[in-house]
Formats: sequence, structure tokens, C-alpha cells
Amino acid sequence: MGLDAAVLTDVLDGGYADIRAKIREQLRDSASVLDDAETMTRAEFRERVREVLVETAATGMPGLGFPVEYGGGNSVGGSIAAFETLAYGDLSVLVKFGVQFGLFGGAILQLGTKRHHDAYIADIVAGRLLGCFAMTEHGHGSNVAALSTVATYDAEAGEFIITTTRDDAYKDYIGNAAQHGELAVVFAQLVVGGESHGVHAFVVPIRVDGQPAAGVRIEDDGPKMGLNGVDNGRLWFDGVRVPREAMLNRFADVTPDGTYESAIENANRRFFTMLGTLIQGRVSVGGAGVSASKVALAIAIRYALRRRQFETGQEGDGESEQLLLDYGQHQRRLLPLLARTYALTFAQEVLVDQLDAVFSGQTTDDHARRELESRAAGTKALATWHATRTIQECREACGGAGYLAVNRFAALKADTDVFTTFEGDNTVLLQLVAKGLLTAYSTEFEDMDQLQMVRFVANMALETVVEQTGVRKVVERVRHLIPNQNDGEPDLRDPGYHLDLLRWREEHMLASVARRLKSGIDAGEAPGAVFSRVQDHLVATAHAHVEALVLSAFIAKVDSLPASEERQALVLLRDLYALSTIEADRAWFMEHGRLSSVRSKLVTAEVNRLCREIRPIARTLVDAFAIPEELLRARDLLGE
Amino acid sequence: MGLDAAVLTDVLDGGYADIRAKIREQLRDSASVLDDAETMTRAEFRERVREVLVETAATGMPGLGFPVEYGGGNSVGGSIAAFETLAYGDLSVLVKFGVQFGLFGGAILQLGTKRHHDAYIADIVAGRLLGCFAMTEHGHGSNVAALSTVATYDAEAGEFIITTTRDDAYKDYIGNAAQHGELAVVFAQLVVGGESHGVHAFVVPIRVDGQPAAGVRIEDDGPKMGLNGVDNGRLWFDGVRVPREAMLNRFADVTPDGTYESAIENANRRFFTMLGTLIQGRVSVGGAGVSASKVALAIAIRYALRRRQFETGQEGDGESEQLLLDYGQHQRRLLPLLARTYALTFAQEVLVDQLDAVFSGQTTDDHARRELESRAAGTKALATWHATRTIQECREACGGAGYLAVNRFAALKADTDVFTTFEGDNTVLLQLVAKGLLTAYSTEFEDMDQLQMVRFVANMALETVVEQTGVRKVVERVRHLIPNQNDGEPDLRDPGYHLDLLRWREEHMLASVARRLKSGIDAGEAPGAVFSRVQDHLVATAHAHVEALVLSAFIAKVDSLPASEERQALVLLRDLYALSTIEADRAWFMEHGRLSSVRSKLVTAEVNRLCREIRPIARTLVDAFAIPEELLRARDLLGE
Repeated sequence: MGLDAAVLTDVLDGGYADIRAKIREQLRDSASVLDDAETMTRAEFRERVREVLVETAATGMPGLGFPVEYGGGNSVGGSIAAFETLAYGDLSVLVKFGVQFGLFGGAILQLGTKRHHDAYIADIVAGRLLGCFAMTEHGHGSNVAALSTVATYDAEAGEFIITTTRDDAYKDYIGNAAQHGELAVVFAQLVVGGESHGVHAFVVPIRVDGQPAAGVRIEDDGPKMGLNGVDNGRLWFDGVRVPREAMLNRFADVTPDGTYESAIENANRRFFTMLGTLIQGRVSVGGAGVSASKVALAIAIRYALRRRQFETGQEGDGESEQLLLDYGQHQRRLLPLLARTYALTFAQEVLVDQLDAVFSGQTTDDHARRELESRAAGTKALATWHATRTIQECREACGGAGYLAVNRFAALKADTDVFTTFEGDNTVLLQLVAKGLLTAYSTEFEDMDQLQMVRFVANMALETVVEQTGVRKVVERVRHLIPNQNDGEPDLRDPGYHLDLLRWREEHMLASVARRLKSGIDAGEAPGAVFSRVQDHLVATAHAHVEALVLSAFIAKVDSLPASEERQALVLLRDLYALSTIEADRAWFMEHGRLSSVRSKLVTAEVNRLCREIRPIARTLVDAFAIPEELLRARDLLGE
Repeated sequence: MGLDAAVLTDVLDGGYADIRAKIREQLRDSASVLDDAETMTRAEFRERVREVLVETAATGMPGLGFPVEYGGGNSVGGSIAAFETLAYGDLSVLVKFGVQFGLFGGAILQLGTKRHHDAYIADIVAGRLLGCFAMTEHGHGSNVAALSTVATYDAEAGEFIITTTRDDAYKDYIGNAAQHGELAVVFAQLVVGGESHGVHAFVVPIRVDGQPAAGVRIEDDGPKMGLNGVDNGRLWFDGVRVPREAMLNRFADVTPDGTYESAIENANRRFFTMLGTLIQGRVSVGGAGVSASKVALAIAIRYALRRRQFETGQEGDGESEQLLLDYGQHQRRLLPLLARTYALTFAQEVLVDQLDAVFSGQTTDDHARRELESRAAGTKALATWHATRTIQECREACGGAGYLAVNRFAALKADTDVFTTFEGDNTVLLQLVAKGLLTAYSTEFEDMDQLQMVRFVANMALETVVEQTGVRKVVERVRHLIPNQNDGEPDLRDPGYHLDLLRWREEHMLASVARRLKSGIDAGEAPGAVFSRVQDHLVATAHAHVEALVLSAFIAKVDSLPASEERQALVLLRDLYALSTIEADRAWFMEHGRLSSVRSKLVTAEVNRLCREIRPIARTLVDAFAIPEELLRARDLLGE
């Protein structure tokens, strides 16, 4: 029989195989955009990307996440699957999609009410109305609560007045702003009757007939490392008036006479409910990172199965005819990354299912939503760092040829680079995940963004909280967890053992962070200094947490499959993901008495063995990604 | 008093401060080329880069490495210093310099004799005659000995006939080939009277009045990830005739009647003597990697000293006013990279001095030359990987702003990317270094390229060699080395202790590789499989070797300085380099009983402590790089 790539493709495609197949078709048809990215000027390419966006909108795919009555498909999960698949193609097209349908359209849908939906969604879905998501301000980074743009309600006129209050606090890196956006969802501090109510969103026309609207100043962000088909820009507002109805009023509203109303009493909770709309963006970017890794791996592995390291031109010389991928060093470079790519695919699938459940209203409890937020943040961070690393390694594994633009690495590298810092900076996201983990022990930690967490430390409140609830519970949990320590040596390919190790690491790190927070405060150290010192532990803890989640997803996926060659291949990849993850942090496991030095070396030996076992099926494993050949380009590297 | 950046600059500049200062001036004058790289089309930018090359040639700087009688400066070391400093600026300009003066000019100088020097060098130095170094063939990679281009001697005509024998074995990635090169130094298999004599170099006109010369086909390599100001191309030769005198005949010649002559009897040794001309290229690229890292670090550290992570807009809120670089996590990201950049600077200085000694004829023995080759290969690999990693980390540390082209990371990242694979693929170079280490034990290993090494294993000869000389000697050396093991715990900031650890690692790894090679062969395994399995150990051993060399250089540099604040700052950086290097491989040290788990954690704690100690002087440490402000651009990130 042999391993069947098509069967593996079905496993990888999950519940949205039809949607993915249609997008692959669409990608084939528009593959020339990859050439255009190289040959066109920036201005031309922006127009070309807009064209592709509008053409693709006509297929109905990008609007999948919107209600049927506006031309959508009512499937949030389907829209993410479509987005993930689009990431096999040109990434300017992808990001323009994200801006238009995810951020701009998503904000109107999630934060607005029927009047906004009726007014805009159908046009957005059809690509007739392009818009911006104007949140980020220059110099502010991840601290959305501190935005400087203000929306003041003028009760007499029944209008909001949008103003950029400091010249250096303009909206920046706003996609669709430099050229194509007509409307922007602008995030601003709402002021009613002299009182500030925090950040809210408003629909503001920024461009009329191709010219900036009155009171709006627009600047082009200029050339970027990549994604030059997306027109990012800067926005300043000078007393721009919009009607009262322009406020996206799902969670809060202002009455005509100037009364602020919201069903969510707590200002903080309201703010975070609004920010929840960002989840889809994070899930999308993480998925795109996984897809981009697949493209890089498909090229590098196929190249390694064609190219001989020591070509002599003499036939019959057995030694010199080894393929690149026959070398241990080369397997080491590529195959653990391949395993991790599979792992992240299945983790992403779990995430998309949760997202779909929450956004379709199937799941409504707060806990599920918080878990989703945390999982989205963590998976995005790991998936995008993985993309950066994988693309780089694959480029180097293709030597000088990998440097030519035609071989795709140039665009892959440049375009994905920003993934690690947009839609939430990865290190900041992991700190949010860590906060969530601490929250699990103590409800007092809830609803705090990072800044508040620092303040929390500053206020010494932490001392009590940790003492009362945190450390004790954590220590308790860790004590109950210590597994296998004296049960002889578990099998190195036992997924239960792998998961035990990864979970034990997470719990231990968490307990250690809590302990360090507390002891620093106890010792009277400056809270800022304490936080600064545990910060890398917070990030490491979150990282460990997500790696365990990813392994869980992989294990569950394999368990769900019937016995087959395909399942067996996935078992190898699962074990390689688990063991190479453990190997990468084996110093930590040794430091904490969970791996002996002998055992640690056995882990490395097992990783090598798994690489050799996967080598013969490597080609099928990348073929299973089902990347249209038209998108791989690199004819010269692939020689086919 | 305080730490003085200017004093540190003197230390960093080493023996070529004047040359570096002049190049900095020149860079200031031509800083606009950084903008041109973004705004011009590829065709325009290639012309612009050529212009800058010609202008700079007029200053005499790029010709420094050539004899005075041809307008040069007779200082190989000075030419490398100039090149390193040029790497603060646009890297297309730099690489075009490398192609013209290093590769093309260097080959004429090193492989040619007076007739070639008289004919070409003055014009090359002045930038009047641009040329190519046509070695690499498509599909061949690092295996120069197996080139397919042939030069057949026609005794009747007294000419060589240059031919591309297989259509898919054209010369590829040749700088200056697509547009500006008039001549090429072509590496081809020399055939005289039906007998092949291996690879030799010939001067071949490839372009006349802007058109390809008769029999020469030229193709443009097209857009690349970066370095788009360099016109890389492909070359095919169809029976191109050049006079007998076109052969670069320093090491071998063909008499008019068709007799092959060479003072170097051994064909292999002759070949490697010719390849020795590549050393300068490797040294140059490594140095450029260090300079590019400095630019990235200067931007990211200055940004981190300006930007606040949790800006609130409220004055007087002590906690929220911490600068990015006050956070432990951020120090961790940047400061060990800064320390390693300093370390590599001093390692590079030692290398350049050795290069200068060998190429000026001051040092003539074979051993010194081999040591130089190994050091050049290893330093190039570490320095260029360091550049890739540092630029990426710095980009991410600047968030979304780092993605805008104006902030330099786009170009830095794209342009330096190929450094890890050109002038010798880094993993291949490290295998050469490892071979050199084995050679140190056994002269039988000498003069073997990688392919031969594989064959060597294949021939089972290794068994004897290792048995007779290798393993025993290695084990001996390791036994004598085991230091400090039972002498109580050495001070964590003792440089002698650091060096002991790094050297012990190297020796132990080397012994282990030799043992594994032998035991595999003993067990009757296929030689290819044995090699494949030790390959990553070979690379790791070489890596360990170079890290120890780098630390030695840093220690020697510090020891050479009088007591001062500057020396004290360098002590901190030296210790941070050493301890973060040990920390990164602490799993290995634990696995091999050289670090206890407790001690391993102390290393991490000490790295953190060093980061905190370096934090207050971080700005001065990057100012000491003396990068002209005009080149940093990034006004917005730096806010100055």
C-alpha cells in the first residue's frame, strides 16, 4: 500500500476540506501575483493586490465569517480555514484580506449593531468598500488603553469630534490607510460631558473620491521589509465630526442627550470585551505562520531529495551519490521543524474549533472565552516564531539558490517577518498567557492587563494573593503531579510520558514564578525590579504551557485516527515533536532533576533515530500539504 | 570620569583607526545610497552602486590590499579594515567592492604573475575595469574540484578553448556578470594534450562595449532577496578562445608547445593553494557580519533606552516609566548579543592580523597558513550566523517600527542573509574546521577536502589512522586537561575557568567524534552512514572550537589593556560572552559531568546579573561602534 499523501491531506485539512480545496483553486488562478510582487513597482503592486482581493471576494470565500444575509457564510471557522490556505500564496494579498475582512469587517460586525451591519457589511464582503482598523498609535505599542486619540461628544450637534491630541500620537501602520481605505474604525478615548469613559470605536470616513476627508491627514508609511502590496499609512484627525450613530455601540452607547450607557458595568471588562475582537486576527496570523512554514519546508525538503552534497559527475560512486537529506546534519535541520509544523497544524485546528464555538455562540461561558484568548495568544506566538525560524533554516538549507527571489524564500522571509510583532507582540502575548495561568489560581488576578499587573505588584497586593491562594495551590498541584520519577524508566516513545514531562515543566515553572514574585516583594525589593527579574520566567512559563497544549492536540489527533500507515507516520512526527521539544529544553529538565544526564543523551539519540525513520517518508509528508505546484515556483530548485 | 566611548572606539578600531575613520567619512558622504536602495528600480540602483564604487575607488581605500606600484597600499590588513567599516553602509556597495577588489582583483593578484598584474591591476584598483570571479557552478555548491567547465589547450593556436560542457553546469551567482563585468577570472578543468590537470584559472573577456563577447552567453540572475545593487548573473562559454597568457600562472603554467608545469607537484596541494585566495573573502564577509550586527544593536539598544513599555502619558508614575531596557527580558534579548559582538570583533582582529602576516609574507610556514584557513572559515561561520540572529532579534525588539524600510532592518536582514551561505556554506566551513582539528592529530588527514574525507572513511583507512594516532592522543590530551573538577567551585567570573570549560568541551567532543568514526567502521557499518551520523558532531566540535578561540581573543585583548573604566566594561562583556556561551550549551556540560544542576542554575543567575550590570553602560557600548549617525537613519526609532 504505502503512505498516501492524499489521505494525510484529508487529516490535515480537518473539517474544512472543501473550503481549502476551493481556495487552492483560486490560488492557482492568481499565481502570477507572486511574479508581480517582484516585477511591479510598489504603486502598481498595491493596485494588483487590490484587484486580487476584489476578484477573490467574488468567490464568496473571504466573506465566510459574515452572516448569510449580507452575503457571508456564517462560518467563522471556515473563514479562518480559507485564510490559512490563502497563506500558501502571496502574503500581501493575505494581509490585505486580513485587514479588510478580519480587522475592519470584523470590528464592524463584532462591535457594531444592526444599523452598522446594514450599512456596511454587504459592501465589505463584496470588496466594494475597503476600510481600515485604526487602533495602533505611534509610540504606544501594545498598550491600547492608553491611546491618545479622543472622541468628544457634542450633544448639541449630536456628533462626536475625533481628534489626534498629540502630533506624535498618530495612528500608525494602518493597513488600507495609505491608498484604498474609505472608512476607518477608529479607536479613541470617549469623552461625554467632560467625563472620560475609556476606549471605544467609531466609524470615520477618511477618504472621499480618493482624497483625504476634511480634517484627516494621511501619510504613507513608505517601503516596508515586506508586504509591500499592502498600503500601510498614518492617520491624524483634526476635529473630524461624525454623527452619534457612527459609534460602534454593541457594548456601550451614548444617548442623543449625552448619557453614557453600557450593559457592562465594569469599564475594564468592557474594554477587554471589545478587545476580544482581536482574537480572530491572532488566530489567523498564527495559522498563516504555519502555512508559510509548510511552503518553505516543501521547497527545502524536495530540494534535499534531489541535490547531492558531493556531486562528482561520476556515476556508480556510491558514496558520492547520497542525497542531502541522507545526511544526519541535514535531517536534523529540517525534520524536527517538519514535525513541529504538523504539531502546530493540529493545535491550530483545536483553536479554530474553539473559536468557532465561541463566536457562533455555541459556547457562551466566560471561562471558555478566556481559555480561547489565552490559547489564541500563545499559539500565535509559537506559530509565528516557528515560521521565522523554519523559513530561515530552509533558506540556508537551499544554499545560494535560496537567495534568488524566484525561489520564494525572499518573499516568505520578508513578508512573514512582521508576524512575530503584529496582532500582538509575541513576548507581550506570552506574558498575557502567563497572567492567565496565574489567574487560574486566583480570581483576583482576573481582568488585568500587563500594566495593571505591574501596578498590582507595585501595590503589594500580590503578596497577600500569592500567599493566600497562589503558591499553596501551585505547590499542591506540583506535588500531586510528580510522575514516574521512581517507576523505572518509561519508554522514550510513550506519548503519556512526553506529556507528563511537558506538563510537569509548566507547573513547576508556574510555581517558581509565583514564589519568586512573592519572595521579591517579601524582601522589600522595588516591585518594578521584581517584575523585571521574573519577566523571562513568565515568558518561559507561557512557552512551556503552549508547548504542552500543542502536544495534547497532536496526541488527541493521532488517537482519533484508525490504525493505518498514515497514523503510523503521524506517530513518528508526534514523537519527534515531543522529543525534540524536550531535547531543546533538556538543560532545564536536568537542572530540575527530571532527566538524568544519561537519559538526556538518550533523548538526543532517539531524536536522531526518529529523523532517520522519517527520512524515507519525508517527500510524502510535504506533498500532503497539497500546496499547488504553481505556488512553489522554484522550478530550478525542485527540478521538476 | 565615566566610561568614554571614544576610548572604547580606539580599542575596537585596533591597528587601523585611520583607515576606519576615513571610510566613515566616505560613508557619511554617500549615505544617500541607503535611500536610493529603496526608491530606485533595480536597474537604476545597480548603476548607482557602480557609481559609488568608482567614487570610493578614487579615495584609494578599496585598493589598499594591492601593491603600491599599481596604486594600492600594500596593506592586506588595512583593506580588510576598510571593508569591515564599509559594512556600516549599504551592503550592495560592500558586496560589489568584495567582488571587484577582493575576488576578481584578488584572484588576478594572487593567482596571476607580473604580466597579469601589469595588464590589469592599476585599472582594477581605480575602478576603470570591472570584473568577475567565475568559480561557482550551478548544481555544484561547495565542490569546486568537480567543476564541469573545461579549458583545453590548443598548442597549434597557442590558445585555451573555454567551454561549458553541460548546459546545466553554467557559472552561477557571479557578481558583476549580469551588467558591469568586462573580464572574468574563470575556473575550469585544464586539459592539455588530452590529459586533465584539475582546476585552474583563466582571464576571459566576457563583455565588449556592453555586449556579451563572442561565444559567451549571459543571463541575469534576476531579483534577489537582497543585494539588488549587485548584478549577479550566469555565464556559459561556447568554445571561447583566449591566448595562452590568459592562464593565471603563478602556481602552474602551460608552455607554448603544450607541456604542463608546476612547482607544486601534488595536484591536490596545488588546488588548495589556489583556493587559499578565498581566505580573504571569508575574512571579509565575517567582518562584515560583525559590522552589520553593530548597526542593528546600535538601533535596537538606543530604541530600548528611549521607549517605555507601558507608556501611560501620566508623569510621575514611577512604575510605568521604566525603559524597555530596564526589563530583564529585554536585557536578555539584547545584551548577550552585544557581548558576543564585542567578542567577535576581537576574534576578527586576531584573524586579520594573522591574515596580514601570511599575505604580506611575514609568516610563511604551512602550519600558520592552515591555522589561518581554519580560523577564517570558523570565524566566518560564527560571525555570519550571529549577524542573522542579531538582526532578527533587534528587529523584533523594535516592534512594528522595525519593519519599516527606513529603519534599516529590512535591508540589513535581506542583504546579510546570504552571508551564511556564500564564500562557503557555514555548515560546510565548520566541517572543514573539524577536519583541521582531526588533522592536528594525524598528518594523514591533511590536504583532504570533504569529499575525500568521506572517501577516506569509505576506504577504511580511517580505522588505522584513528587507532594509531587519533584516539589515543585525544584521550591523552583530555585526561591532562580535566581541570578544577575537585578543586572546589571556581569563581564564576574567572576567565581562566571559562576558557577551561570551553576548551574541555572542544577536546571532549573531538575525542568523541574520533571514537564514533572508528567504532562505526569497526562495527562494519556503511561508511556513508557513519559519516552521516557523526556529521552534526563534527559541526558541533568545530563550533565549540571557534567559541573557545573567540574567548581567547577576548581575554588576551582585555589583558593587554591598562586598568581603566573601559577595561572594566570589557571585563563585564567578556564574562557575559563566556557565561552566556556556556549557558547556551549547559545541557552538554551537565550531560558530561562538568556542571552540576545547581551550578548550571548559578550560571544563568550570573548571566542575568551581568546584564543588569551592563545595562547602565549599554548606550556608551554601542556609541563606541562609532557608526555615523547618517547611516542609522531610523530617526523615528531613535528620536534624536
